[in-house]
Amino acid sequence: MEKRKIILDCDPGHDDAIAIMLAANSPAIDLLGITVVAGNQTLDKTLINALNVCQYLDLDVPVYKGCGQPMIREQLIAPSIHGESGLDGPQFGALTKQAEPQHAVNFIIDTLLASAGDVTVVTTGPMTNLAMAMRLNPDILPKIHELVLMGGTYQLGNMTPAAEFNVLADGDAAHVVFTSGRKITMAGLDVTRKVLCLPSIVERMGRIDTKAARLFVDLMTFFNKTQKEVFGWDGGPLHDPVTIAYLIDPTVLTLKECFTQIDIRSEQSYGRTNCDIFDIFKQPPNSSIALDIDIAKFWDIIEAGIRAYA
Amino acid sequence: MEKRKIILDCDPGHDDAIAIMLAANSPAIDLLGITVVAGNQTLDKTLINALNVCQYLDLDVPVYKGCGQPMIREQLIAPSIHGESGLDGPQFGALTKQAEPQHAVNFIIDTLLASAGDVTVVTTGPMTNLAMAMRLNPDILPKIHELVLMGGTYQLGNMTPAAEFNVLADGDAAHVVFTSGRKITMAGLDVTRKVLCLPSIVERMGRIDTKAARLFVDLMTFFNKTQKEVFGWDGGPLHDPVTIAYLIDPTVLTLKECFTQIDIRSEQSYGRTNCDIFDIFKQPPNSSIALDIDIAKFWDIIEAGIRAYA
Amino acid sequence: MEKRKIILDCDPGHDDAIAIMLAANSPAIDLLGITVVAGNQTLDKTLINALNVCQYLDLDVPVYKGCGQPMIREQLIAPSIHGESGLDGPQFGALTKQAEPQHAVNFIIDTLLASAGDVTVVTTGPMTNLAMAMRLNPDILPKIHELVLMGGTYQLGNMTPAAEFNVLADGDAAHVVFTSGRKITMAGLDVTRKVLCLPSIVERMGRIDTKAARLFVDLMTFFNKTQKEVFGWDGGPLHDPVTIAYLIDPTVLTLKECFTQIDIRSEQSYGRTNCDIFDIFKQPPNSSIALDIDIAKFWDIIEAGIRAYA
Amino acid sequence: MEKRKIILDCDPGHDDAIAIMLAANSPAIDLLGITVVAGNQTLDKTLINALNVCQYLDLDVPVYKGCGQPMIREQLIAPSIHGESGLDGPQFGALTKQAEPQHAVNFIIDTLLASAGDVTVVTTGPMTNLAMAMRLNPDILPKIHELVLMGGTYQLGNMTPAAEFNVLADGDAAHVVFTSGRKITMAGLDVTRKVLCLPSIVERMGRIDTKAARLFVDLMTFFNKTQKEVFGWDGGPLHDPVTIAYLIDPTVLTLKECFTQIDIRSEQSYGRTNCDIFDIFKQPPNSSIALDIDIAKFWDIIEAGIRAYA
Repeated sequence: MEKRKIILDCDPGHDDAIAIMLAANSPAIDLLGITVVAGNQTLDKTLINALNVCQYLDLDVPVYKGCGQPMIREQLIAPSIHGESGLDGPQFGALTKQAEPQHAVNFIIDTLLASAGDVTVVTTGPMTNLAMAMRLNPDILPKIHELVLMGGTYQLGNMTPAAEFNVLADGDAAHVVFTSGRKITMAGLDVTRKVLCLPSIVERMGRIDTKAARLFVDLMTFFNKTQKEVFGWDGGPLHDPVTIAYLIDPTVLTLKECFTQIDIRSEQSYGRTNCDIFDIFKQPPNSSIALDIDIAKFWDIIEAGIRAYA
Repeated sequence: MEKRKIILDCDPGHDDAIAIMLAANSPAIDLLGITVVAGNQTLDKTLINALNVCQYLDLDVPVYKGCGQPMIREQLIAPSIHGESGLDGPQFGALTKQAEPQHAVNFIIDTLLASAGDVTVVTTGPMTNLAMAMRLNPDILPKIHELVLMGGTYQLGNMTPAAEFNVLADGDAAHVVFTSGRKITMAGLDVTRKVLCLPSIVERMGRIDTKAARLFVDLMTFFNKTQKEVFGWDGGPLHDPVTIAYLIDPTVLTLKECFTQIDIRSEQSYGRTNCDIFDIFKQPPNSSIALDIDIAKFWDIIEAGIRAYA
Repeated sequence: MEKRKIILDCDPGHDDAIAIMLAANSPAIDLLGITVVAGNQTLDKTLINALNVCQYLDLDVPVYKGCGQPMIREQLIAPSIHGESGLDGPQFGALTKQAEPQHAVNFIIDTLLASAGDVTVVTTGPMTNLAMAMRLNPDILPKIHELVLMGGTYQLGNMTPAAEFNVLADGDAAHVVFTSGRKITMAGLDVTRKVLCLPSIVERMGRIDTKAARLFVDLMTFFNKTQKEVFGWDGGPLHDPVTIAYLIDPTVLTLKECFTQIDIRSEQSYGRTNCDIFDIFKQPPNSSIALDIDIAKFWDIIEAGIRAYA
Repeated sequence: MEKRKIILDCDPGHDDAIAIMLAANSPAIDLLGITVVAGNQTLDKTLINALNVCQYLDLDVPVYKGCGQPMIREQLIAPSIHGESGLDGPQFGALTKQAEPQHAVNFIIDTLLASAGDVTVVTTGPMTNLAMAMRLNPDILPKIHELVLMGGTYQLGNMTPAAEFNVLADGDAAHVVFTSGRKITMAGLDVTRKVLCLPSIVERMGRIDTKAARLFVDLMTFFNKTQKEVFGWDGGPLHDPVTIAYLIDPTVLTLKECFTQIDIRSEQSYGRTNCDIFDIFKQPPNSSIALDIDIAKFWDIIEAGIRAYA
C-alpha cells in the first residue's frame, strides 16, 4: 500500500496528541510535517505540547510554528477542557526538540507547491494556518489532494449551541477553506461525540505496555475529568484522531456529500457549519460530512496505533 | 381530572389538522378557541382549512382569523409539503362554518385577560399571533399558564440547515415569545422527527371506523407523499400533534430545562433556536426542550384520539 | 386651503412637544388624534407628557396610549437628553386630561379604514404603533395618504455612529414601514441637525407673549442644556417639528427620492437607514429623503406657530 | 527636514497613480516600496498599472505583488470607475519594469522588522496585504510608526449607502487594522469628496509642461468621465492622494481622534466604518478621522508634486 502523504495542522490539545501519535507511526501515512496553530491554548503552549509529544514518542517529524491568533476575530482558547498548559496530565522530560525556523504557513505553501498534488492536509484545530496559506498563495489550491478536518457539526455545537470549538475559534478561516473549491471531508461532533473514551477504553489501552499507551492513559485521565466537569460525560469524545483513523481506514466513517456554508456574519450563530444534509438548496456539494462512525472499528484503529509503538 | 384550558394557534396544514382533531375531543383538554395564522399556506387558505376540519368533525369551537404575514420578515409558506390548498388530500363538503368576527390577536388578549391565569397557549405554526398579542398588551403575560409549541430544533433544521419552518417563518415572533418570561415547552424537530407516520401507522389508524380515521388517512397519504419527495422519508413526521399529546400525557416527552435564544440577526442562520443544552452560558433557563419522545405512547394517544370520535 | 388630516404619533420628548404645539393650531392641519408610544421615555411618562402639553395649550384633541415597547428588540430610552420625566424643564399644573380608552394601534386602524384615503400619518418617535397597525390589519395600507417621519440619517447617527434614535429604538418597525409600499417622506438628522435652537432663537421666541412661547422657552432651555452635555452643541436640533413644518410648507425641505433599506440584521449597525442617495442599486425608490432645509423659513414657521396661540 | 519613510500599499487605479506620483518624488517622503493589492481591478491588472506608472515616471522604486483576493469575502472590483484595465485613459509604452520576486506581505513584514520603528504604512486600496502581514507576524505591530489610509466614511458610502469601496472590498482586513492597536489616520470620503478634480483643476495642471502633468490630465479626463456617469459629479474626487498630501503637510486635514469599529457581521452594512465622532461609547480612541480638508492647500500640494517632475 502506498503511504498517504499528509500535513497535520493541530493545536495540542489532548485529542490532537493522540492524532499525532496515530499519524506518525501508521504504515498507511507519511507524515510530512506538523504545523501548529493557536486553539486549545495559546500558540506558545500548543507549540511546546506538539514538541513534547514528538520528543516523548521519539518522532522524527518536523514541527512548524504557525499563526497565533484567528484571521479576523478575537482569540478563543479552551483551558477548561485542556488545562493551563493545553496538555495537562502527563509529565514530560526537559524539552530539547525545537521547531523548524520556517513559518508553518510558508511550509504548507512550499510543500504543496513542490508536491505532485498528492498531499492531504489534515486540520484538528482552527483552520487559520491553512486559510492564510490559501489567501497568501492561491496557487496551492489545485495542489491539495484532500482536506480532512475535525470540526463543525450539523447538529449541536459544544462551545455555543450553534458552533463547535475549532470552527468557532476561527470561523472566517473555515469559510475560506469551505469556499476553496477543494474536496473537504468533515468529521464533526456528530460522529466524534460517539467515540467517548469511557473508563473501559482507558483500561483497555492501559493494558498495553508501550510508551504510547502510558501517554494515552495520562492524557485521557485528565481529559475525562474536565469533560465530566463541563459536559457531564463519563468519557471524553476523542475528536481529533477520527481524522487520522479515517485516513487509515475510510470505512470507519459513513459520509454524505452536501453543500456546507459557514455562518460568519452572525454574532449568535458565528461559526455554525450549516450543512445542507437534506439538499434543500440544490447547490453543488463542497463537502463530505460524517454522519456516522463505526465505534468498534475506531477503537481497534486506536489500539493498533498504540501497539505500533512497541 | 380537570380539563386543561387551551387556545390552539395554528396554520393548517396536515399535522395541524390532526392536532385540532386531537385537542377538540380530548377529555383532558378544554379547547377555548382556534386562532389561525399564515404559515404552511397563506392566511386565506389556512383559515379555510381550519374551518373545514372543524366542520367535517362537527366541532363546536370558535375559529379566529389572525395575522397574514410575519411581524417583520417577508412571508414564507410551504406548498411543497402541504400542497396548493395547504391541506391537499381530503375532499371536504361545501363550507358553511364561519370565522368569528374578532381578530385572533384580540381574542387571545381578551381570553387571557379574562382568565384566572389557567389558560395554556399552544402554537403549531409561526408564533405571530401570540407575539403580536404580547406586544399589543403586555398585561397578558402573567395570565399565560404555559406555552407549548411545535417548532425549532436544537440540532438540524428542515427549511434551512439552521432552522425549522415555524421559527424560520417568523423568527422575530419566536424571539418575542422566548424572551417573554413565561414558561415555554418546545417540541422541536428533535422529537417530532421520531414520530414518522409510516405506512404501518396509516394502516393501523385506517382500521378504525370513524370520520376522524378517514380524515387521518386522507391527510397522511398526501403528507407522506410530499415528505418522501422533499426529505426522502417513508413516513412524514407528525410534528404538530406532539404538543397536544404532551398536554394529554406529559410523560410522552423527555424534557430538559435550558436557556434558548433565537437568532434573528443572521441572514444565514435566521430562525435558529440556539438551545443551550449543555448549559454553557450559565443563564437561567427560559424553556423546556424536548429531548426524546415515547414513540409507542405517542401513537397510542393518536389512536385514542381518533377512536374518541366514534 | 383644505386642511391636511393627520395622525401624530409621538413620544414626547421636548421636540415632540413643539411638534404637537405646531400641528394642533395650524390652519394647514387637521390633527385627528395624538397617538403615544414609548421612546424618549417609557410609555407611562410619554403619555403623561402628551396629555400635559395638550392641557397646558388647551388643545381639544384626543390622545391614545400605544405600545410600551419595541416590536422585537429590548427597550431603549433617552433620559440623558429628555430627563427623568421625558419632558423635564416646564412645570405643569395638576393633570386632568385623560387618554382615550381605545388602544392607539386600533385608533390608527379604525381612523384609516374609515377615511377616504386622505389621512397622513406623522411619526416623531419609534414607528412601533404604525408598524403594529400595518401588521395587524394590512387593509390600512392603501388608505394611508402619506407617511412623514422624523428619523434616520443617511450620514451620521446620534445614538450609535450608524443609527438615529427613533429608528434605532425600533428598527424592525421602521423596516415594516419602509417596506410597506406607501410613500414615505423622511426628515432625518441630515436636516434636523441644521435647525439648532441656538440661544438667539430661544431669545427670539421668548419675546413673544403667548403661553406657547413660554412653553417653548422652558422646553428649549432644558433641551439645550442636555444637548450641550451630550453632543457639545450650543443649541439642540429641533428634530420633530421639521415634519410638521414640512406639512405646513413643503418647500422648507429639499427632497430626493431614493431606495432606502433599514439594517435590522446587524448588531453594530442595527437601525441604520441605508439610503441609496446615489442610486447605486438601481431599485425603485420607496422614500423621499430630506437633503437640505431652509433654516430661515423653518424658524419663521415655528414663530408663526407660537404666535398663533395668542 | 528628515524624510518620512513609507510603504505605499495600493491598487492603481487612477487616484492611486496620482498618489504614487506624489509620494515618489516628494522631498518629504522616502518611498521604500510599492506593494500592490487587488481592488480597483484584479491583481494582475493593478500590478501592471503600478509598474506602468513607475516606468513612465522613471521611478526607481521596487514594486511587490501582494494578495489577489480579500481575506475572507468574495472579490469586489470597480471597473465602472477605473475601466477594464483599472487605469484606462493614458497610453503607456511597452512595459519592461518588473515586480520584485518577494511577496508584498513578506516585504512589509521584513521591512518593518528590520526598521527602527520609523516606517509609516500608507494604504490606498483594500487593506488585505497589511492585515495579512499583521496576522502572519504580529511582531511587526510595534514597528509600525503610523498607518495612514484612504478609506471609509463616517457619513455616506459610495459602493453601498453604508460603505466606502476600499473598506467594503475587504472589511475584515480593515477590522484587523483598526483593532491592531496602532495609530491610524483615516482620510475617508468625508474629506476626499471635497477635492473634486473639476475641469478647472484639470486645466490648471495641464498648463504645466511635465510628463507628470500629461499623465495627470490623461488619468483625470477618463476618471472624470466615469465619475460623472456613476455619481453625476463634474469632477472626480481625488481620494488616494489625500494620504500623501497629509504626510507632506499634515495641516491639510482637520482630524478628530475617536473610536472606530468596522461592521463585518452585517450583510447590508458590511464594511461600514462606524466612527464614534460624538464619543457616545466612551471608548479609548483607535483612530484619527479626517473631518475637513483645506481644499486650496491640497491642490497646491498636487501642483507642486506635478511640477517636481520637471
